[in-house]
Order: sequence, then structure tokens, then C-alpha cells
Amino acid sequence: MPAAPADDALRSYSFLGPSGTFTEVALGQVEEARGQIWKPVSNVGEALGDVLEGRSTAAVIAIENSVDGGVSVAQDALATMPGLRIVGEVLVPVNFVLVARPGTRLEDVSVVNAHPVAYGQCHLWLDAKLPSHGHIPASSNVAAAASLLDGTSTADAAVAPPGIVNHYDLDVLAENIGDNPNAVTRFVVVSRSREIPARTGADKTSLIVELPNDESGSLLGMLEQFSTRGVNLSLIESRPIGDALGRYRFVIDALGHIEDERMADALLGLRRFSPNVIFLGSYPSADRTAVDYHSRYNDEVFIEARDWLRGLLSAEPLDD
Amino acid sequence: MPAAPADDALRSYSFLGPSGTFTEVALGQVEEARGQIWKPVSNVGEALGDVLEGRSTAAVIAIENSVDGGVSVAQDALATMPGLRIVGEVLVPVNFVLVARPGTRLEDVSVVNAHPVAYGQCHLWLDAKLPSHGHIPASSNVAAAASLLDGTSTADAAVAPPGIVNHYDLDVLAENIGDNPNAVTRFVVVSRSREIPARTGADKTSLIVELPNDESGSLLGMLEQFSTRGVNLSLIESRPIGDALGRYRFVIDALGHIEDERMADALLGLRRFSPNVIFLGSYPSADRTAVDYHSRYNDEVFIEARDWLRGLLSAEPLDD
Amino acid sequence: MPAAPADDALRSYSFLGPSGTFTEVALGQVEEARGQIWKPVSNVGEALGDVLEGRSTAAVIAIENSVDGGVSVAQDALATMPGLRIVGEVLVPVNFVLVARPGTRLEDVSVVNAHPVAYGQCHLWLDAKLPSHGHIPASSNVAAAASLLDGTSTADAAVAPPGIVNHYDLDVLAENIGDNPNAVTRFVVVSRSREIPARTGADKTSLIVELPNDESGSLLGMLEQFSTRGVNLSLIESRPIGDALGRYRFVIDALGHIEDERMADALLGLRRFSPNVIFLGSYPSADRTAVDYHSRYNDEVFIEARDWLRGLLSAEPLDD
Amino acid sequence: MPAAPADDALRSYSFLGPSGTFTEVALGQVEEARGQIWKPVSNVGEALGDVLEGRSTAAVIAIENSVDGGVSVAQDALATMPGLRIVGEVLVPVNFVLVARPGTRLEDVSVVNAHPVAYGQCHLWLDAKLPSHGHIPASSNVAAAASLLDGTSTADAAVAPPGIVNHYDLDVLAENIGDNPNAVTRFVVVSRSREIPARTGADKTSLIVELPNDESGSLLGMLEQFSTRGVNLSLIESRPIGDALGRYRFVIDALGHIEDERMADALLGLRRFSPNVIFLGSYPSADRTAVDYHSRYNDEVFIEARDWLRGLLSAEPLDD
Repeated sequence: MPAAPADDALRSYSFLGPSGTFTEVALGQVEEARGQIWKPVSNVGEALGDVLEGRSTAAVIAIENSVDGGVSVAQDALATMPGLRIVGEVLVPVNFVLVARPGTRLEDVSVVNAHPVAYGQCHLWLDAKLPSHGHIPASSNVAAAASLLDGTSTADAAVAPPGIVNHYDLDVLAENIGDNPNAVTRFVVVSRSREIPARTGADKTSLIVELPNDESGSLLGMLEQFSTRGVNLSLIESRPIGDALGRYRFVIDALGHIEDERMADALLGLRRFSPNVIFLGSYPSADRTAVDYHSRYNDEVFIEARDWLRGLLSAEPLDD
Repeated sequence: MPAAPADDALRSYSFLGPSGTFTEVALGQVEEARGQIWKPVSNVGEALGDVLEGRSTAAVIAIENSVDGGVSVAQDALATMPGLRIVGEVLVPVNFVLVARPGTRLEDVSVVNAHPVAYGQCHLWLDAKLPSHGHIPASSNVAAAASLLDGTSTADAAVAPPGIVNHYDLDVLAENIGDNPNAVTRFVVVSRSREIPARTGADKTSLIVELPNDESGSLLGMLEQFSTRGVNLSLIESRPIGDALGRYRFVIDALGHIEDERMADALLGLRRFSPNVIFLGSYPSADRTAVDYHSRYNDEVFIEARDWLRGLLSAEPLDD
Repeated sequence: MPAAPADDALRSYSFLGPSGTFTEVALGQVEEARGQIWKPVSNVGEALGDVLEGRSTAAVIAIENSVDGGVSVAQDALATMPGLRIVGEVLVPVNFVLVARPGTRLEDVSVVNAHPVAYGQCHLWLDAKLPSHGHIPASSNVAAAASLLDGTSTADAAVAPPGIVNHYDLDVLAENIGDNPNAVTRFVVVSRSREIPARTGADKTSLIVELPNDESGSLLGMLEQFSTRGVNLSLIESRPIGDALGRYRFVIDALGHIEDERMADALLGLRRFSPNVIFLGSYPSADRTAVDYHSRYNDEVFIEARDWLRGLLSAEPLDD
Repeated sequence: MPAAPADDALRSYSFLGPSGTFTEVALGQVEEARGQIWKPVSNVGEALGDVLEGRSTAAVIAIENSVDGGVSVAQDALATMPGLRIVGEVLVPVNFVLVARPGTRLEDVSVVNAHPVAYGQCHLWLDAKLPSHGHIPASSNVAAAASLLDGTSTADAAVAPPGIVNHYDLDVLAENIGDNPNAVTRFVVVSRSREIPARTGADKTSLIVELPNDESGSLLGMLEQFSTRGVNLSLIESRPIGDALGRYRFVIDALGHIEDERMADALLGLRRFSPNVIFLGSYPSADRTAVDYHSRYNDEVFIEARDWLRGLLSAEPLDD
């Protein structure tokens, strides 16, 4: 592990740039990153590489979108780059504008530049207003807009974050073009620290779990490891392991902290059940909502059961 | 706890008498009872009371019959008399003869005296050969026969163990009248010792478990505590708790020893799940058959998982 | 099937006699038996034989007691005598008195005559008041009392139903000696009719189900046939099949009627799952409490799903 | 529904163009498309729109990749565009080359143009050989290559199918750059026909199922609808419904045909369980491997159970 930076040294945070991206907005909500170095990078792999190799203290990456689902590249990177830990999460509301070179009218637009995820989230609006449009994918929401001006794109308009006009000389042809007004993207803060953030009562534990084989029964068996300990899941996504069709790992967010007895016991069960469990971290949930669970799964219940078992094994005489 | 008897003092074993019962046969198979005091008693409660109050070292009681099922009185006594432990089990093949006062012919028999369990095991034969017979229940198989001679019974014949004619002057009207030639009764050795017999790899663990409520789902939940740890059951019987129709406790024999990791973990799960779990003991199974279970539930798997979890919690740096 | 009796012929009902038994009390609650022939018999097998062979229209037999559990003889008879159907149930509160020959005092009692089930229900009281008593089992609660007077018993007292003093000249030494003041026995009315009583919304369906093999998982699989259709159970008891230790059939009362879609579907699932399912009948529950179940399992939901599937299979064009 | 084309009219098949894509290779394996019109389109929505509006008989679209997982856009389109049916599937092995403008050397490459799915499949190779490369996403594998020549891209190289050099004047900088030599993409043939392809014994049924709520238990409940009927799954992927984080629909491929009794029964169970089940079709699996299932789930078992239930309900007398 690289040496911790001296107290007066600035810490570096990698994020998907350039300036103006939603990831930058997410980074702005990370308290410990205030006043530190923000390092724009060009993709998730580079951001996580910065962390793994000690160039950055942490990275902020998009992991899940309420409309488009899990961000596969991020999920797969966390599954295959050992040594990373999630230490926090941030939610960013997502909305979009359609921008164009000054003077362009909506009816002039035939080709739209957009990052594929953003395109997916504005799909209904675009189909309704521009039924015969073509789509050119961009590498980021900001790049989509910027390409209108730098001559690298033949598109007539771009889907972009609302703040884009602070950075580029573009006209807004339409606002709020996202198909879902409640769309939100979840970002996670990834570091290499082994320290687990303290338990708050409103925590999440992120895991990646492989199934022991490809029977449907094994997914049931995996889910029972949670349900039998009263642990609920806020996220479960399948990702192919990649060696053959039908082989999956599951990306899971479970409600609770590794120091909760019920979660620790579920982790033990998963570790025994699965050929590969990756613990990505326990951290405070962004919504700060206390985890709701049945009192049957209180810490005290687990502790009392262990005491009971220990008493049985110690062959102590009964009190009578 | 009463003081252990001095090494040279004889130990006392209570059993359902009188001489000639199947329970006496079972006691004969209990190695440590050889050459010790065998104390005949008149019912299960008395036998267990002897143990609880220190009058006997152990008691041998019938607990399950392959034809008639669990012996309710014994199961209920173990559920309600705290402080008892099963330390061993014995299997005794069961067969019966029909006996009568000398000179009686089968066609003369209209009323049959028989212990209810024995009666249940000879039911088909009796219905076929003596279709209009009446039944008087007896307190033991030997008492059924003895009552023919001591004037306490109006019965014409009795169902009894084959060896009965060694003790009483009775004629055998028919042999092998049991409905199932493979019938066997299981007896358990009950003591007050807190010492758990050593693990042999061919062990049983006896439990009594109450369900948290009367929903059918709670039985499923209880069974999952075993199945999710690869523990199989050789016995599961419901017994009413007694306070209302539809409220049950379950008498369970699970394959394995409390010192097996998978069994210990199942016990923890049960303790957390159930409002009342009674651990009756772990002891070598009578058939000495090694418990068969999936390697996924080996001790090493449990130990490795604990080590893994401990490593996560200790915030140790990765080896890299 | 025997011809139905002519309308003006009396019907016959078999019950465990003699007069004064709880079974007679139960029969008194069977409306259609009023003014008909009540035929006392000496055991359950005889009562059911009367029905099977057409000597009686129906029989009333005890099937379950809130303290002592399922009545094994009755459960096993229903499991092994094909052609019987339960068409109704009756609940009878159970309480007991201790009776003796006139002039006997409680402190004179050393031996108690009692039917084993009654004995089990008064066990705590007897142990407390008569700690050194002996027990002689009787063939019925009434016979226990009668034997005190007819010279066939050496007992000093008997456990009997409260109404016994209307039939026999006996003193009551103690009243309300049952250990549970809420004890109740459930009786069923058994006939040979193939007609299923009409659905009332407050029904029970009685079944006997064998498991496909002796794995603990197969009990889970059987229970899922109910839970996955929202059917709750009011009774589940294991009974040995009788051919070997560890092989069980299950006696089940499920809440609902075979004409309820969810119950019919559960029966289909059970039939496919189990090597042997015995349908003992659907009938109004004694407590007339409407069955409570999630609206997800309404009849309409099942019917709608079938219509949907039929539409898919019929290859009809969409309405558009 | 649009009128079927006259027998002598050509049928039209939409596919993701231009010529040279893997989708075109897939279409080449669709027997009924031989000698018909192949219509290249620019995205999945356009392909499916052609089908829905009658411009094409069918469309071939990529639905799942062994490395990158489900194709979200295709899954979401099938979930939200009612009236479509999958009538067949095709597997295409996938491999890639890195191409560049003539004269480019590998060490000159700093920005790579690639379709996101292709990029994901060559990620390890690119990270190893071009650690600091940037990525511009393209709309298709062919477009990625074509953009190097038509001036619409600033990239230095492109990931493309091996046959690309037959269409474009490009140099191959590296071959076999896919991370998994066994990578395969699954394509489905989508039509608007209500006719379900005949049962072959080696079939798949594709479904989209919403969960009744967001509890982890509901996923268990959904999976039990399959497992309790012996139906295995070859694909299960979660996709966000889009209205809030944590709300999912599941894209499922189940092994078997809707005319298999076990599958039909599972569909009934799903329809009752889920607020929304979309049946996408039953069709022969590409690998022609007969579905393996326990004989307990044979058609005959389902039919026999229905006959049994019908007999119970018909109140027919027993044969005796």
C-alpha cells in the first residue's frame, strides 16, 4: 500500500472528465474531496488504475443509473481489479438539454451526438420530436457537445448536461428532454484503503458473488443466504463471467454493514456457498435512511445464540 | 448435579420393566450398563424422574418405532423436563406372539390385552384373524401377558414379546404376528451429564424446536436452517405444544454432531429463529453409518470463511 | 357403493361407545345425525369398517387433541383404508373429573385407571396431587370409570368425563383435573360419499401425503406446493409409513376447499410431487372462520392467468 | 396485423448494417431469409420499428454476448414495444482485429474507435498493449472502421470484425484481439407473427417479468415458479424498470416450450405472481440440445394430475 499522504499534502481524486460531466457534479458532493486535487480522466479503467497504482487517493465512478441500470464497465472493473474498496456513494439527479451550434433550429436537426447512456435516457423524447434522427455516440456527455464546435462531428445537435452552456457557446434547443424526470445516477467513491467506514445504521454493503454452477437452483441458494438472515438487497444485477454463455456473477448491494451481525453471518454463508465472493465495502448509504429489518435479526440475537452454543459445548452444569 | 458415584460404586439404570420387556433387551445392549444395577420402573416419567433426581445414572426409554412412530409420552417428557440429555441410542428388532392361558384356542379369543404400541403393530394380523376382537390397552407388553394370570384382566389373550414364555406359564397361539417383519424400536439412553459424547463421524443430534408462530411459512423457515447448512434429518415429528390446536413443537434428529461446524451453525440459526430450542444431545448413531454430506459443508469451509471475514474486519493491507 | 337409504329409512352413525364418551358428545353436535341411529362401537377400526361396508352412513372419530396431538390410530386408519371421506368436523371441549367408588378419599388413591390420552392430559395434576400413583390404562374414558364398579379393575380411582356420574354411582374426588383448561378434541365425520360438501369460504381440506424420498429437502418441496399458492396449513403431522425408520407420510389439514382455485392448483402440484396423495375431503371448518388469504390467490387471478395462456397458445392476432 | 406477403413476394429482413457487421453474419444463418431482401438499418429501434409497422417481416438483433452480457438496448426495446415475438435464435462466434489507416503503426495509436460492446470484449488486450489509449464509442463495428476513412473520426485505429478489410482499405495492426477466444454473440429473430414455432424438444422460452415489489423475497418467489416445475433458466438478467433505483424487471430465457406442460404451468404461476409478464416467444434453441429435465415434470405427470383432480371433483363412485 502506498504511504498515506502527509497531512498537509493534497489528495487527488480521479473522475471522468472533462469539466462539466455528471461525475464532476458527483465529486462535488464528496466532502473530503473539497479543496483537493480533482483529476479528470478519460475512462473508468484509467480512474481505477490511478487508485490502484497510488496516483490518486480515490476515484468517483458512475455505477448505476435509475433508467439505464448498472454501468457494466464499472461493475466489471470492480469484479476484475482486485484491491479496490467502495467507501461511499453519491446520488446525482440527471437531466438533459438538447444543444446545437448557435442559430440551429430544432427542425434542422437530423443527426444527434450523445453518449449512449444519455441517448438511452432521452430516447422517447427524441423519437417523438425527431422521428427520423440518426445517432452518433460520444465518449462523454461533454464531448458530445464539444464536438459540435471543434469540427470533429457531423452532428447537428447534442444531448448534454444542463450546465454545458457555462462552458461552451451553444444554443439550448430544448430542456428537460430526459424521459424520466426522477432519473438519478449513483456514483461510488473507490479507494484502496482497507479501513471500513464506521457503521452508521444506514449502510450498504457491496458485493460481487459468483454462483457455484449454472443451475437456476444456485441463484435461489445464494439469495437464501441473505433472506435467512433478514438482509434485504437494494441492487442485484447479473453480469456474465465471460467464459461462456449462461455463466454469471452477481453485483449486489445489501442493506447493512459488515459489522452488523446479520450481515457478517450472511457473508460467512456466501463465502461458504460461492466459489468467489468479492467484498467491495460497507459504507453509509447516500440517502441516510436507517436500514429496516426485523428485530429477530438484531445483533443481540446473534450474540445470545453464540453464548448459548458456547454454554452447550462447555459442558457446564445447569444452575439448579 | 449429584456427585459422580465413586469408581467402585455400582451405577443404576432405570428401564420400563418388568423383566422381559423390549426395553430390557435394549438396556442389554448398553455396554456401560453391564454388571450394573438395572432398575425396573413402571413408566417413562418415573424413569426420567430417577435420572433427574439422581437416583439413577441413566434411563433407557423407547423413543421411536418404525411402525407406530414417535413415542409421544417420551417425546413430551423430554420437551418438558429440563436438564436431560440423550447420550446414546440402541435399536431393537421387534416381534410379537399372541399368548393365552393354557388350553385357550385362537377361536376362543374375543378380547385382546396389548400395549397400545404393540397393538398398533399387530393390527392387520388381528383384524384378519380375529375380526371382531376387542382391545384392552396394557401398560407394558409384559404386563399385558401377566394380567392374564393375575386376575386383573378379563382379556382372553395378550400380545407379548417372544421371550414371554420364559417368564410366564402361557400358551403361544400364534407367532410373528407383527405386521412388519422389519419392525424396529429405537431406544435412547438419557442421563443428566453435561458431557457430550465424543464426535465419531456417525452421530446424531436430537433437538426439540418450537416454531415462532403458526404460519406454514415458519416450518419452511425452520427447515431451511438445516438445508442451508447441508444438514439432513433422520426424524422430524410434530407434537402439539398443548395450549391450542395448531401450535406445534418439532422433535428432530439431525445427522451430525454439535462439534461439526455445519451442525453448530445450524444450531445458531435455529436458536435465533425459534422461541425455544432444546438441545437434547449429540451421540453416536446406533447404526454407526458415517454421516454423508456435501464437501461444501466441511469443517474447513466454515473455518476458512471465518478467517476471511476476520481478515476483512481487521483492515489488514493486501499482500501486494 | 351401497344403495343410499330410502328417504324414510333411518341412517346409522357409528361412534366410540359406550354412552357417555366424548365421542358421543361430538356426535350430538352433528346435525344430520339427530333422530337417527347411534351405534356404539369399541374401536376406530370398527367404526370405519361399518362405514366402508355400508353398515353405517357415517362414523364420528377423534382425530386430534390440542394437548395430546394427532390420534395416531385414526390417522393411520384413514391413510390405509381407501374409500373414506371426511365430510365434517366437530370440536368438543375436554375436561375431566377424578371419580372413585363411594366413600373413597383422595388420600386413599394409589392406582388410577385412565385411557392413555386422558391420562396424558391430567398428568401434571396427578403428579402433583398423587405423586406416587400407579396407572392402569383403560380402553375408553367410560370404561375406566365403569371398571371401578364391575370388579374388573384393581384401581382406586378413574379419570372420566364430567357427565360420568349421570351413568354410574361414583363419587367425584376432584373436578377440572385436566392440565389445560382450554383443551379441545377435534372429531371428524367420516362417510363413503363421493359428494364433496359445498364450499362455504370457511373450509378445510384434509390430505395424506407421502414424500418422494427421505431427504429433508423433500419436506421443503412439499410445503412449497402450499406456500407458493398461498395456502396455509392448520395441521401437519408426520406418521411413519411403517416400512423403515425415517420414512414418513404427512397428515395435513389445509385451509380452503378443493373448489378454490388455489387449493385445486396446490393439489395438482402435490399429486405431481408425491408418490401418493390421499384426498380425504373438503368440508366446513368447525369454527366457521372465513379462510384468510392474500388477494393474489383469488379465484379470478387463476382464471385470468389461464385465459392469458390460452390466448398465447391460440395464436390470435393482437387487437391493434 | 399487416397482410402476409403473397407467396411470390420477397420478404424483408432488417438488420444492423452496414454490410460486414456480425449481425449480417447472423442473418446469413437464418434459413428463411435466404434469397430475400436484407435491409440494413442503423439501430435496434429502427429494426424493431420496421417489424412493428410491417415494413419488414422480421428483424435480426443482438441480444446477449458471452463476454459483455445482455444487450440492454435490445432487452429494453423488447420490454417496452408490445407486439413483438422472438421466433428463432442464432449464435455467431465473435473475434476482432485492430485496423488503422494505411501506414499507421501500433505505437502511433492513442485513440481507439470501437462499438462499446466490442470495446468491452477487447478491453484487456487494449489495456495491455495501449495502456494510455482513449476510447470513442461507435454505433457499429463497421462504422468504427469506416469513420477512419470518411473524416468523421479523430481516432487513430478501430476495433472491427475480421472481414472488414474486404470492404475498406485499412491495415490490420493486430488480429485476435478479443479477450476471450470462445466469445459468442446470440442474435434473435424478431417478428410480429402470433404463430409459435413448433415444439422440437430443444426449445427456449423468452420472458420479461416484473417483480411484485422491491423486496429481495420477491425474486426468490419468482424463481420458485420455475424451480417448482423443474424448469431451468439459461439466462436471467435484471434491467431497471426506470422509474426508481432498485426497481427491476428480469429478462429470462427458460429451457422448454410453452406447449410443454411444465412450462405452461410455470407461465401460469408467473402470470399470477407478477404484475407484468411479457411472453416473447418459444423457439428452437440454436444449439439444438434437447432440454434435460427430471421425469417428474413430464407432460404425462401433469395430465395425470389433472385427470385425478377432475375425478375428485366429479364425485364419481370408486370402482369397487
